[in-house]
Amino acid sequence: MKGVILSRAPGAAIVDLCHEIAPRDVAAAALALRAAAGYFPLRSLFVAVVDPGVGSSRRILWARTASSRFLAPDNGVLSWLTEEILECRSVENEDLFLPSSAQTFHGRDRFAPVAAALLRGLKPALLGPPVVDLRRIPFPAPRRSRSRLSGTILSFDRFGNAVTNLPSSDVPPGARVVHRGRALGSLLTHYAQAHAGSRLAVAGSSGFIELSIRDGDYETSTRARKGDPVHVRIP
Amino acid sequence: MKGVILSRAPGAAIVDLCHEIAPRDVAAAALALRAAAGYFPLRSLFVAVVDPGVGSSRRILWARTASSRFLAPDNGVLSWLTEEILECRSVENEDLFLPSSAQTFHGRDRFAPVAAALLRGLKPALLGPPVVDLRRIPFPAPRRSRSRLSGTILSFDRFGNAVTNLPSSDVPPGARVVHRGRALGSLLTHYAQAHAGSRLAVAGSSGFIELSIRDGDYETSTRARKGDPVHVRIP
Amino acid sequence: MKGVILSRAPGAAIVDLCHEIAPRDVAAAALALRAAAGYFPLRSLFVAVVDPGVGSSRRILWARTASSRFLAPDNGVLSWLTEEILECRSVENEDLFLPSSAQTFHGRDRFAPVAAALLRGLKPALLGPPVVDLRRIPFPAPRRSRSRLSGTILSFDRFGNAVTNLPSSDVPPGARVVHRGRALGSLLTHYAQAHAGSRLAVAGSSGFIELSIRDGDYETSTRARKGDPVHVRIP
Repeated sequence: MKGVILSRAPGAAIVDLCHEIAPRDVAAAALALRAAAGYFPLRSLFVAVVDPGVGSSRRILWARTASSRFLAPDNGVLSWLTEEILECRSVENEDLFLPSSAQTFHGRDRFAPVAAALLRGLKPALLGPPVVDLRRIPFPAPRRSRSRLSGTILSFDRFGNAVTNLPSSDVPPGARVVHRGRALGSLLTHYAQAHAGSRLAVAGSSGFIELSIRDGDYETSTRARKGDPVHVRIP
Repeated sequence: MKGVILSRAPGAAIVDLCHEIAPRDVAAAALALRAAAGYFPLRSLFVAVVDPGVGSSRRILWARTASSRFLAPDNGVLSWLTEEILECRSVENEDLFLPSSAQTFHGRDRFAPVAAALLRGLKPALLGPPVVDLRRIPFPAPRRSRSRLSGTILSFDRFGNAVTNLPSSDVPPGARVVHRGRALGSLLTHYAQAHAGSRLAVAGSSGFIELSIRDGDYETSTRARKGDPVHVRIP
Repeated sequence: MKGVILSRAPGAAIVDLCHEIAPRDVAAAALALRAAAGYFPLRSLFVAVVDPGVGSSRRILWARTASSRFLAPDNGVLSWLTEEILECRSVENEDLFLPSSAQTFHGRDRFAPVAAALLRGLKPALLGPPVVDLRRIPFPAPRRSRSRLSGTILSFDRFGNAVTNLPSSDVPPGARVVHRGRALGSLLTHYAQAHAGSRLAVAGSSGFIELSIRDGDYETSTRARKGDPVHVRIP
């Protein structure tokens, strides 16, 4: 993919957003795009290649928000952006694709040459027709009651921290975070507030509560799993 | 290596071709170069550092094809390029190397400074004498009979797909791919043509048949191994 | 981090020094900086993000040697540079930081914007006050007697080679390297001097003795551990 982009858009600055998305994990890719997009230069083009449906009739989408541009399979990977999608098109102009006998690597044969064309100034209207029904994955919203906020583990980072869907800003002072029946105490702002080896809940860098072990790996130590319920007990 | 290149050729655009070659796997590196070279800008310089013979008397080669340039140990890593090698030299001009007390990291001490010198316009004739006997690894050619094409698994990608040496273009309609006595059906063009969880054979992005599991990991699930025989039954 | 740097210092050339430092392994990061710094362009800025104390009161340091610049947590990661630190400041100017509700990702919210400001010419005096008491991790110096040099394994590289703290230049001809009671022979200059599968000691690329297996993985095969004693018997 980088070879194709640099062949057609010399000087393009290419950044690998992440090397840690498991194969076919569209939700993890959607979270990564959500977390990163706002920190990149205005009008950066994000090329999402987590694409288990490659070669099938799933569409390739180009999308625009106020700050960013995206090229992604229509599989829900753009569902959780923090900014609204203002314009979306189905990339169908085959003149932009590489000729290829294979249908298993659209990253190289379609996404990369289209990305290069856009970097060189191609008008998005030439990509294909507007899309209004892009596929969306519902964000697993936490449930709220008077005494409790209930959510789940969405993913793990490479340190073994568990990222939940519970917004840190929704946790009032004195509330306690609970996972697998075990209270992790009140929400901390950084790891070093806990004793070495102890479990903690911390306000993570993407705005959500994270479960962690000071100087350790929460995922491995507690055998936590994606989808585990996590609660906040509100006093 | 990147530090040395950027010190001596500021502004060089450096791309990591791959992070997934196992230590000392010269054949996997040869396949990666074969697959990638044609997609990079004309006259790109590929620096191959899979080099188990580092420090020994194995030569360092510079080679040129119609489209690309290569700097590689003389260990067979250039054997499977799709383009013919038009010129090859043994890199022996020690003035180009970094002074070093160690002989275990020629990537840093020899390949990188020579790459930088070439990027800055060094004439290849100044590298060293022409080479006509570069080491070649024979490509494991498939065997053909009237009713059968017989090959093998060459490598696995990071999704667990098994890449074979059987060219997809040699498979007639109606032929069935067989691995470990199990028929994988006829050759598909993309993963989504199969049912979730089912095994399939697909025309891969490098021109060879790949064995796969829809939404799964073929290598792990089937315990497939490099060198496993794979057949195509021709009707 | 790369998004923030490129947003504020467009055109910055960013290199990932290493993807192989284990979480929280400050000593491994200190060794990596020691090994790499001298090979990068003059006045390169190294941003060290191995930072288990993120968010706590540990300081963020900017440091300058004759050749390089560093931005690093005050956790000892700058202890083993080969060049002397000529100037060091505590980065306390909060105007340079990103506003953030989280305290767990200073790499993105503090190191990256400060790095970008420095790349764009910010005077280091504007970062914060001078520091004279930066935290240092003592280098585990080898012990010497008339007949023996005694050291330890510091780390492993991705090939499974064990890097020791024993300088190759301190080993006289005829000396033999011993690990776990087993003599690895005299110090070689490269792997191919040993027979396939045999254990060897080699003068490594960072100036230290490394323990290796020809065409194998020393760490896995011998179950070597960080901290294992390694001796050189001097004849």
